Amino acid sequence: MYERFWQQVGDKATVVIPGWQSISYFSDIGNLCWFLEPEFAKQLLRLHKIVGNAVTEDRHIVVGTGSTQLFQAVLYALARPGVEEPISVVSAAPYYSSYPAITESLKSGLYKWEGDALSFSKEGQFIELVTSPNNPDGYVRDSVVNKSGGVLVHDFAYYWPQYTPITSPADYDIMLFTLSKTTGHAGMRIGWALVKDREIAKRMVKYIELNSIGVSKDSQLRAAKVFKVVSDSCESSRDTTESLFEFAYHLMVERWQNLRAAVKRSGMFSLPEFSPGLCKFTGRFFEPQPAFAWLKCEEPIEDCESFLRSNKILTRSGTHFGVGPQYVRISLLDRDDNIDLFVERLSNIRKDNLYQHMGE
Amino acid sequence: MYERFWQQVGDKATVVIPGWQSISYFSDIGNLCWFLEPEFAKQLLRLHKIVGNAVTEDRHIVVGTGSTQLFQAVLYALARPGVEEPISVVSAAPYYSSYPAITESLKSGLYKWEGDALSFSKEGQFIELVTSPNNPDGYVRDSVVNKSGGVLVHDFAYYWPQYTPITSPADYDIMLFTLSKTTGHAGMRIGWALVKDREIAKRMVKYIELNSIGVSKDSQLRAAKVFKVVSDSCESSRDTTESLFEFAYHLMVERWQNLRAAVKRSGMFSLPEFSPGLCKFTGRFFEPQPAFAWLKCEEPIEDCESFLRSNKILTRSGTHFGVGPQYVRISLLDRDDNIDLFVERLSNIRKDNLYQHMGE
Repeated sequence: MYERFWQQVGDKATVVIPGWQSISYFSDIGNLCWFLEPEFAKQLLRLHKIVGNAVTEDRHIVVGTGSTQLFQAVLYALARPGVEEPISVVSAAPYYSSYPAITESLKSGLYKWEGDALSFSKEGQFIELVTSPNNPDGYVRDSVVNKSGGVLVHDFAYYWPQYTPITSPADYDIMLFTLSKTTGHAGMRIGWALVKDREIAKRMVKYIELNSIGVSKDSQLRAAKVFKVVSDSCESSRDTTESLFEFAYHLMVERWQNLRAAVKRSGMFSLPEFSPGLCKFTGRFFEPQPAFAWLKCEEPIEDCESFLRSNKILTRSGTHFGVGPQYVRISLLDRDDNIDLFVERLSNIRKDNLYQHMGE
Repeated sequence: MYERFWQQVGDKATVVIPGWQSISYFSDIGNLCWFLEPEFAKQLLRLHKIVGNAVTEDRHIVVGTGSTQLFQAVLYALARPGVEEPISVVSAAPYYSSYPAITESLKSGLYKWEGDALSFSKEGQFIELVTSPNNPDGYVRDSVVNKSGGVLVHDFAYYWPQYTPITSPADYDIMLFTLSKTTGHAGMRIGWALVKDREIAKRMVKYIELNSIGVSKDSQLRAAKVFKVVSDSCESSRDTTESLFEFAYHLMVERWQNLRAAVKRSGMFSLPEFSPGLCKFTGRFFEPQPAFAWLKCEEPIEDCESFLRSNKILTRSGTHFGVGPQYVRISLLDRDDNIDLFVERLSNIRKDNLYQHMGE
């Protein structure tokens, strides 16, 4: 989806790296995060200030190979190796499917996935992951576990003005962001964390040191460049399509309109409904238009993923996200053609087709 | 050390990446390693062919965020989650200090560090890490565990003709390589594995998917470019300083000569002695000249690291590598000035200084 924007931007966003540049492991020896490129740090602080989506004062920046690596760095940083019991990791369902997959992948003795935060009642220390707007369903979220001993980790991958109104700068202890959902550059594998506590930031850096001895400098330099272009465009022309956020906002408006129309036409599905809010960045009053469609198949369909697959629509079942198979998640950030095709196919699924389908 | 070479190469090694390029997560959907850039794969195969240091036929290529991430991918791929006991991980001492640090870092139930392969006698499955030439001591190595149930992982980070004679193409099941020790570009965080077994390669890819959803495309593109320059220079002028390997070889000759002279002058240290071998790549008969100096302090010095620190030389103690504190490891890939300073300081340490030092 973002490809077209960057094509239109042209040379301004091109990065040129000579063979002799950034050879060393180190980027900024004096910095707690010694592999953080100073120009990248500068540009991300500038962008947060312009958009107003996060408080950056008195925070340590930790760069990661995507926010995926940073999530693991957080688990490592918050675990207490001396303690017998692993720390519990929870998130309210539906939650991002990678959280359980990653947390459980190495059978770590440091941390343990305990599932839905809403039904969590175990004693002891815990980490609650709060994704807001949420992946997969797009709702703005707050923490839900109502007991002490918890540390909150906020995943703000989607807290950008193309997806949701920016109501106030997020101000939490550990906040994760990712380039892929900001500018579209998923292939760079760049994420960053804003961390209040120095010791936690240090342990996150230690994890990234152990896991990959730092983060690609080339991608950090390129990320700095695209951030610069985005910030420049916001400052010069906030309301034209020259701004990345405006470009993406309008595309998301259109996609959600088409999607909601298709769902209505079909009559067999439902989508989350959102309340509008005032976006302080744009001054616009609008409803969230998430990066994912969280689609529910209405009765009598029980397995939405396989039903849609039989209609040539590939989705991810709700079972991966801690809920039932009547839900699926569908990305809305694909190229125009693919989105159009998906919406068209969806709108052509009708009750009478269904009965044919079930009779087959 | 490599910076000067790349400065001399100039624009040929410059990479230019427009803003709209390589945005997606995917590089090569049809490939088992779906995040592998085809041009990077092509250039690394070409380089291996020219240098003759590895058999690449019938191998799957897995790219990683440095070989550090690939090492963890191997542990994940070889572990058997269904089995109660974690798989043992061993390496002959002195071994690369990151092996135990990484293996133990998450208290994984999948694998467990069991230390020196020479004294390993535990029952059950095991992984033996064979680094050749070895980090830290530079010796060419073979596996040492003499029992069944083991899988060998060969770390060939230093099997390049500037460090050691290329006697034959390495031909093992799992072989790891890293850009940082090949061309010097540590900041790119690029490594690659050549893997015979398809299932193992698939599980390694799965790990990298979980750990970082792929590997920076920008760095892969840049790595492809520097490999191309290196291969081109080898083909056109193998014996001039235009070739990276010739440049680095001569620098290593000089550094080892100066280092051995300093050690001799001081009389208080010793270095490993190597047998010369015929390098099939250059046709040259020479002794290994490793990337690290593995220095032993002679008696009465017991703690070589702190003794050298008091002489303003920063090193890493043998204790990190599974042996005693009379050893230290020192990198020989630093910039010229730092190496000169280190050698000068080392040569000025004399027995009489020592007695002063001990009397303080």
